[in-house]
Amino acid sequence: MQRYFVSNRQINKGIVEIVDQDFHHIKNVMRMKIAVIVEICDEIQNVYTAKLLEFKKNSVLFSLIDKLEVDVELKTDITIALGLTRTSKIEEVIRRITELGASNFIPVEMNRSVVRLNKNVNYKQNRLEMIVKEASEQSKRTKLMKIHEPIKFNQLLDNIDDYDYLVYAYEDLAKNSKNKFKSIIPSFKNKKVLVIVGPEGGFTTEEVDKLDRLGFISVGLGPRILRLETAPLYIMSAISYELEL
Amino acid sequence: MQRYFVSNRQINKGIVEIVDQDFHHIKNVMRMKIAVIVEICDEIQNVYTAKLLEFKKNSVLFSLIDKLEVDVELKTDITIALGLTRTSKIEEVIRRITELGASNFIPVEMNRSVVRLNKNVNYKQNRLEMIVKEASEQSKRTKLMKIHEPIKFNQLLDNIDDYDYLVYAYEDLAKNSKNKFKSIIPSFKNKKVLVIVGPEGGFTTEEVDKLDRLGFISVGLGPRILRLETAPLYIMSAISYELEL
Repeated sequence: MQRYFVSNRQINKGIVEIVDQDFHHIKNVMRMKIAVIVEICDEIQNVYTAKLLEFKKNSVLFSLIDKLEVDVELKTDITIALGLTRTSKIEEVIRRITELGASNFIPVEMNRSVVRLNKNVNYKQNRLEMIVKEASEQSKRTKLMKIHEPIKFNQLLDNIDDYDYLVYAYEDLAKNSKNKFKSIIPSFKNKKVLVIVGPEGGFTTEEVDKLDRLGFISVGLGPRILRLETAPLYIMSAISYELEL
Repeated sequence: MQRYFVSNRQINKGIVEIVDQDFHHIKNVMRMKIAVIVEICDEIQNVYTAKLLEFKKNSVLFSLIDKLEVDVELKTDITIALGLTRTSKIEEVIRRITELGASNFIPVEMNRSVVRLNKNVNYKQNRLEMIVKEASEQSKRTKLMKIHEPIKFNQLLDNIDDYDYLVYAYEDLAKNSKNKFKSIIPSFKNKKVLVIVGPEGGFTTEEVDKLDRLGFISVGLGPRILRLETAPLYIMSAISYELEL
């Protein structure tokens, strides 16, 4: 069944008004007819079945039928902060970590980022949010991952008070036997966790020193060198495996 | 350091002769000079440092210096059999599961595969092998994942005697509490494991019945629906997490 994400102000007395791309999708792509049933997710993770009532000029109305009991969200709030890189890679990571249950994504300019803020960053917030919506609909999530504007490394470090766990993935730890990832994931349950993944060239020593001073836990992701696009998928898969299976 | 995979017959009395694409890469892309040091991996997972000796017309010679002690391979032999699909998706999966340590990849035509054998399959063995080589060099693997020719579902099931564990990822198990994946992965160590991931539309009931009759273990990959491209990454990440961290 098709699933659409709406804001709470689109729902009024049991009627949902859908506009913009979703309206286009319903009318022109899916060519839905009156009385078709879809699923509607609101901002506070309610999921409803809803029946198509009528098409207006620039919108379509559905009436809510039933509230469904669904519980597919990861029981931990994971923020992936990724070294700023090419848009195609960012898009791939966003698509996959949405499926894998992440809550927040922050692109971060680090020393070795090839793409720079205020220079060659080509960052289309709208397009990235569309990718999140599509991936959420397909994976049957009830919550939309939040895409944050790109920031600098130091700005990220200025805003870490809210997190219960601070983690960064560090390649040189790959063969380190004191790897703590497996021992800390079980304690992530119902917590807010920030995981930083470095850019293509890795963190600089200066960045690693800052992270260590701030109490970040460094974790390795196995003995093979993972690409920047693969590391966040490994992290999210490991967290889901540990907490959800 | 650049890493090149060679066959054992390219090595003779401590001299390695590199040809074809790798020769082109060394000469024209990297523009290496005499005495440059690279890493050479042979077919039986030896890794050597080697020094550039001389360029010939269609090849370049290196002399082996030292044998390195490296141990980055996953200690279990994982075969991912994936529902036949579009080449771009196959390529993405191959790139990622190479990084994540898989040993074999088999594309399999299943009932719901959109791409069909002998019809619209567009399968370039050479190109896929190049992707494996590149991903192996980048992730510092010492063994090349083997890419098998696409086969039919029944052909796959005719050749399962060699495996110690037979597993398939089944979406409808997502919310099933009797999920066995977490309890069986620890026993994969030093074993040969076949994991089948269905095509876009999932397995048919008939396929699932066959798998069950043959003793395959069905496993779920968490409560969210994963795309065909994401499921193999989840599986490989979970196995690495459980066995290597």
